[in-house]
Amino acid sequence: MIKAGIIGATGYAGNELVRILTGHKEVEIKWYGSRSYIDKKYAQVYQNMFEIVEDCCLDDNIEALAEQVDVIFTATPQGFLAGLLTEEILKKTKVVDLSADYRIKDVAVYEAWYGIEHKSPQFLGEAVYGLCEVNREKIKAARLIANPGCYTTCSILTAYPLVKEGLIDPETLIIDAKSGTSGAGRGAKLPNLYCEVNENIKAYGVASHRHTPEIEEQLGYAAGTEITINFTPHLVPMNRGILATEYAALVKKADGSLPTYEEVKAVYDAYYQKEKFVRVLEKDVLPETKWVEGSNYVDINFKIDPRTGRIIMMGALDNLVKGAAGQAVQNMNLLFGFPEWEGLELVPLFP
Amino acid sequence: MIKAGIIGATGYAGNELVRILTGHKEVEIKWYGSRSYIDKKYAQVYQNMFEIVEDCCLDDNIEALAEQVDVIFTATPQGFLAGLLTEEILKKTKVVDLSADYRIKDVAVYEAWYGIEHKSPQFLGEAVYGLCEVNREKIKAARLIANPGCYTTCSILTAYPLVKEGLIDPETLIIDAKSGTSGAGRGAKLPNLYCEVNENIKAYGVASHRHTPEIEEQLGYAAGTEITINFTPHLVPMNRGILATEYAALVKKADGSLPTYEEVKAVYDAYYQKEKFVRVLEKDVLPETKWVEGSNYVDINFKIDPRTGRIIMMGALDNLVKGAAGQAVQNMNLLFGFPEWEGLELVPLFP
Amino acid sequence: MIKAGIIGATGYAGNELVRILTGHKEVEIKWYGSRSYIDKKYAQVYQNMFEIVEDCCLDDNIEALAEQVDVIFTATPQGFLAGLLTEEILKKTKVVDLSADYRIKDVAVYEAWYGIEHKSPQFLGEAVYGLCEVNREKIKAARLIANPGCYTTCSILTAYPLVKEGLIDPETLIIDAKSGTSGAGRGAKLPNLYCEVNENIKAYGVASHRHTPEIEEQLGYAAGTEITINFTPHLVPMNRGILATEYAALVKKADGSLPTYEEVKAVYDAYYQKEKFVRVLEKDVLPETKWVEGSNYVDINFKIDPRTGRIIMMGALDNLVKGAAGQAVQNMNLLFGFPEWEGLELVPLFP
Amino acid sequence: MIKAGIIGATGYAGNELVRILTGHKEVEIKWYGSRSYIDKKYAQVYQNMFEIVEDCCLDDNIEALAEQVDVIFTATPQGFLAGLLTEEILKKTKVVDLSADYRIKDVAVYEAWYGIEHKSPQFLGEAVYGLCEVNREKIKAARLIANPGCYTTCSILTAYPLVKEGLIDPETLIIDAKSGTSGAGRGAKLPNLYCEVNENIKAYGVASHRHTPEIEEQLGYAAGTEITINFTPHLVPMNRGILATEYAALVKKADGSLPTYEEVKAVYDAYYQKEKFVRVLEKDVLPETKWVEGSNYVDINFKIDPRTGRIIMMGALDNLVKGAAGQAVQNMNLLFGFPEWEGLELVPLFP
Repeated sequence: MIKAGIIGATGYAGNELVRILTGHKEVEIKWYGSRSYIDKKYAQVYQNMFEIVEDCCLDDNIEALAEQVDVIFTATPQGFLAGLLTEEILKKTKVVDLSADYRIKDVAVYEAWYGIEHKSPQFLGEAVYGLCEVNREKIKAARLIANPGCYTTCSILTAYPLVKEGLIDPETLIIDAKSGTSGAGRGAKLPNLYCEVNENIKAYGVASHRHTPEIEEQLGYAAGTEITINFTPHLVPMNRGILATEYAALVKKADGSLPTYEEVKAVYDAYYQKEKFVRVLEKDVLPETKWVEGSNYVDINFKIDPRTGRIIMMGALDNLVKGAAGQAVQNMNLLFGFPEWEGLELVPLFP
Repeated sequence: MIKAGIIGATGYAGNELVRILTGHKEVEIKWYGSRSYIDKKYAQVYQNMFEIVEDCCLDDNIEALAEQVDVIFTATPQGFLAGLLTEEILKKTKVVDLSADYRIKDVAVYEAWYGIEHKSPQFLGEAVYGLCEVNREKIKAARLIANPGCYTTCSILTAYPLVKEGLIDPETLIIDAKSGTSGAGRGAKLPNLYCEVNENIKAYGVASHRHTPEIEEQLGYAAGTEITINFTPHLVPMNRGILATEYAALVKKADGSLPTYEEVKAVYDAYYQKEKFVRVLEKDVLPETKWVEGSNYVDINFKIDPRTGRIIMMGALDNLVKGAAGQAVQNMNLLFGFPEWEGLELVPLFP
Repeated sequence: MIKAGIIGATGYAGNELVRILTGHKEVEIKWYGSRSYIDKKYAQVYQNMFEIVEDCCLDDNIEALAEQVDVIFTATPQGFLAGLLTEEILKKTKVVDLSADYRIKDVAVYEAWYGIEHKSPQFLGEAVYGLCEVNREKIKAARLIANPGCYTTCSILTAYPLVKEGLIDPETLIIDAKSGTSGAGRGAKLPNLYCEVNENIKAYGVASHRHTPEIEEQLGYAAGTEITINFTPHLVPMNRGILATEYAALVKKADGSLPTYEEVKAVYDAYYQKEKFVRVLEKDVLPETKWVEGSNYVDINFKIDPRTGRIIMMGALDNLVKGAAGQAVQNMNLLFGFPEWEGLELVPLFP
Repeated sequence: MIKAGIIGATGYAGNELVRILTGHKEVEIKWYGSRSYIDKKYAQVYQNMFEIVEDCCLDDNIEALAEQVDVIFTATPQGFLAGLLTEEILKKTKVVDLSADYRIKDVAVYEAWYGIEHKSPQFLGEAVYGLCEVNREKIKAARLIANPGCYTTCSILTAYPLVKEGLIDPETLIIDAKSGTSGAGRGAKLPNLYCEVNENIKAYGVASHRHTPEIEEQLGYAAGTEITINFTPHLVPMNRGILATEYAALVKKADGSLPTYEEVKAVYDAYYQKEKFVRVLEKDVLPETKWVEGSNYVDINFKIDPRTGRIIMMGALDNLVKGAAGQAVQNMNLLFGFPEWEGLELVPLFP
């Protein structure tokens, strides 16, 4: 039994961490950190936890916390952890950071897209990008995990095998992503009001969303070269779920023909057949966010369009689980040698 | 490890049974019965179960099934089980019936409200009404459980202690209930289309809904006399959840004053403080369906209106869990001597 | 062509006033008052008005405004108008107040329920409660209209004929009301966030909602005596619409029997058959909020329950139209002698 | 005053035609055709029309109808009109067809994508594609209008000026479209049930949706050459609205640089500044479906991504108005010489 602390426990991702860890046999939560609700009972902030969590919220004193726990989850605004993290802390405890602070290796890129100075670039080198299916072995040995973003997890896993194996031209990649509203957080902002989101769909952050360089960096590793893509997020009137629809030109085979369904499927299977949390669907079954809600699954499928020579790849996940808290726990499991699926055998809720 | 069969496994309640039993340590599902989808893979009917359930759907041959399993769940239309149940079956297996066939002891009342003939009234006597918090001991000894309706579970538990202890006048009871749309089932009917339900609220079955006599019978037992109430269900644009708002005149104390908040609260606590799945909320915290979604909890609270001398009681549950499949599993746990909460430690999903 | 000014034009009710007045042949909006958005283009606050409204928002200087327009609509917080209104203003212009400041004749009741001091009780006497179907003639002669609340319009009109004609016992009246979320306004508050409202239903303001005394006062006039009722509002995950479900004991006839359907229907028809905006539905057709969305209609029907001797009355309207802006325009039409339906022949939008 | 008949009046598009024509000064509806509801009062099928429409539904005898009306709207399944249309009918009345029967000039393409035989190809030559902003003059002189599809109207208008003026390479065009559920019609089908659509998003008809060839044909005319594109529709949990997000490579200028924002904006303005129903939004204001709900507007904007050299164009409309019934009325106005916006000055409903 290890001890865990959460900084930022009263955001939606923090609450999802609490939900998942509550059902995890090997972990005990010792610290519900929340700047806004210090000394308030956690279950009064999240009434779903009534009679399940009895603790009160504490502050976000990460140094004090590091003394007490084996792992710290930070579900905090950009720049928070980078401003506080020290070698002392990392010597005492593992850190799984759900913010973007250590996801991007190039400080200049981080600072350009996030518009803030990075306060602890010295840890960028050792931080491991916690996309479990891609970096499993590195994660096991890490102290500091940069837990991937919700859009990025979905976007990368959907295209990864085809980029890695050279079946698609990564420079043609266009990712059109759709997200539920919990991704916008629990801040009381006008655009997130019920009446503004309901019965509405819009794009936002067009050509400027911060998850773009994160996708480019990771898929660039897979491609073996720097790549530039288009990524467009949309806000959808639903609580949870991300669907990424991805377009790319297929690379023709030597004889000038396109790869077949079977050939593409074989590549996906080679990468994902043994992955518990990635489900490559049967032919012609398209991913829907509802089928993964509440679970750690990513559902993936694709369709080849012989008319245009493009492939349309689709991936769906729950942004709060595989896109945030679930993946964070999956990373924790790897860090501590627990079964990777411990606490994560969550059956999707339908309807 | 016991073996279970489900008849009607492809309705929403059936799917919820599969979700819950999949996480239950002591049960293995051996039979996914579905008249509509025989021989089709269950996971093709409910894609959330992809790579979780590998079995195909079978027919609804309850006699064959009784040979193979320890417990049968019937999530079937009214009259189905009553038409098939035999002493032979009950000698071989326990039955938890999610339909209304054995909920009402008086055949004439059943036939009047349901408009069908009851084909096996001989089992009405032994059938136990499976409201666990009320009939726990009887359930343990039963062969046949009449699993309560969704509206009724919520309506009864919300008012039960006050009726039982005589704090309210049951003849003044008015129940105004609101339900998500999964309660209407998965049948392809025009009134259940997205565009008909969305952005809309309506009452239905006013003064004629079939759950009325079920509530009256059970609360009548508590009151020690026959009672007649008003029950009005409403359809709400959400997937899951029932909220019951219940109004009744408080019985004045000997000195002519109304019971106080503390006195009423003490009665609720006496009945529910030890009940894992009933949460009486803190003062002034009102039940919301979202706080129990996906879980087996019922959240209850009340408010006294000194101006009118009435009490307003409110209860919220997830109609597919505590209102159907969760309670069925709770009943099964009692029948087989498992811990009552086995498989049911489901933390509510928020948001 | 008259000139109108709106103070509070950037709330949801204000925007609905703009929508309706834009289609009104006899009115020109001269003043879009908004404390929060002074000098900002109105169409940048409400993008639906792009290329329809070219004006910028102005401040809320009601004295300056009174010089320029024939009618002022105030869609402002409680207490705002009461703090500013003067005889000077009322000599220059008519005022239709969408707040509660002049709805309740008894200052003590107002101050008790609203928790603020009333700054201009001298106008309470002349203010006319603008429920057009009830107070039509008084409205025509008024200078100051207290436009009714959304819940109250629905609640009162649904029960009014039966209270007035003595068919129900008003002391037994229980109103269980359900509202879409636009009624909560456009303020950026956590409980109104999409993820908090969506997939959720809850009661609020139980036994304490401010519309209670307003309903009691108006139905008390109809009953010819003071009455006390229960009123419980609920928040429903939809943008627009209020459904009121109302319960009351029918008064038995001299022979001890209950009034029949036909007798009750005849009373409703006597009051509403000539009312353009009140639709008493055909037998067994129950009101649904979706059928009146975007329109000025109230749909009403009822069901007698012979088992309990109660009647269940139901009414549905669009809270922003008949519950706010539409009724305000209806009042304006009466004030200025325009056809009562001018600008209000809005066909409900479905789906 | 002209007379109109609607065949298919009880589908969602038919009901929207009724809503719009009810407010049109120059038209009287004489025939509410509906195979499913013959002799039933129209207002019993669409309760929003209670006390507005008194007529009953009639059959779909187009020959009888042609004798009585000046214009027939057909909101019918594919192949219906093509199987019935005759020269006799067209001599007596104008026809605005909301189905796809006469949208595609090449019979082979129609038959390949729709999988049915075209029964009256002789009218394909004279049928005018009723995209008013593009084909206004031809429409005025036509007898038979092929009213464009909902996705196609949005997709074409969003890209049209840039394709026409050669600013983008049409072969790189990728259209990722999102639609509310009313586009799926009022048929009682399982995938359209509330619980299947709500809290869910999915792609469908990937690389095979029937609106693809329609877009290709029309944008091909603009490009002056045949083009092939990707079009992917998605189902969004909302009643109304289509958002098209369109990606294309910008054509570099002679000096190798990309067109600027101002240059692209100038092209859009040249085409749309005088168009009442096309609103090119201000810089950085992105289209949202909610801002056009209930209206005949298309809101359009774009963003240049200098990193990839692509432009992202976005368009939003209400699928039942500009995407169906509104555009049909706009066509009718052109056919009969009415002001183009008569009956269509519908202010978007918000929220």
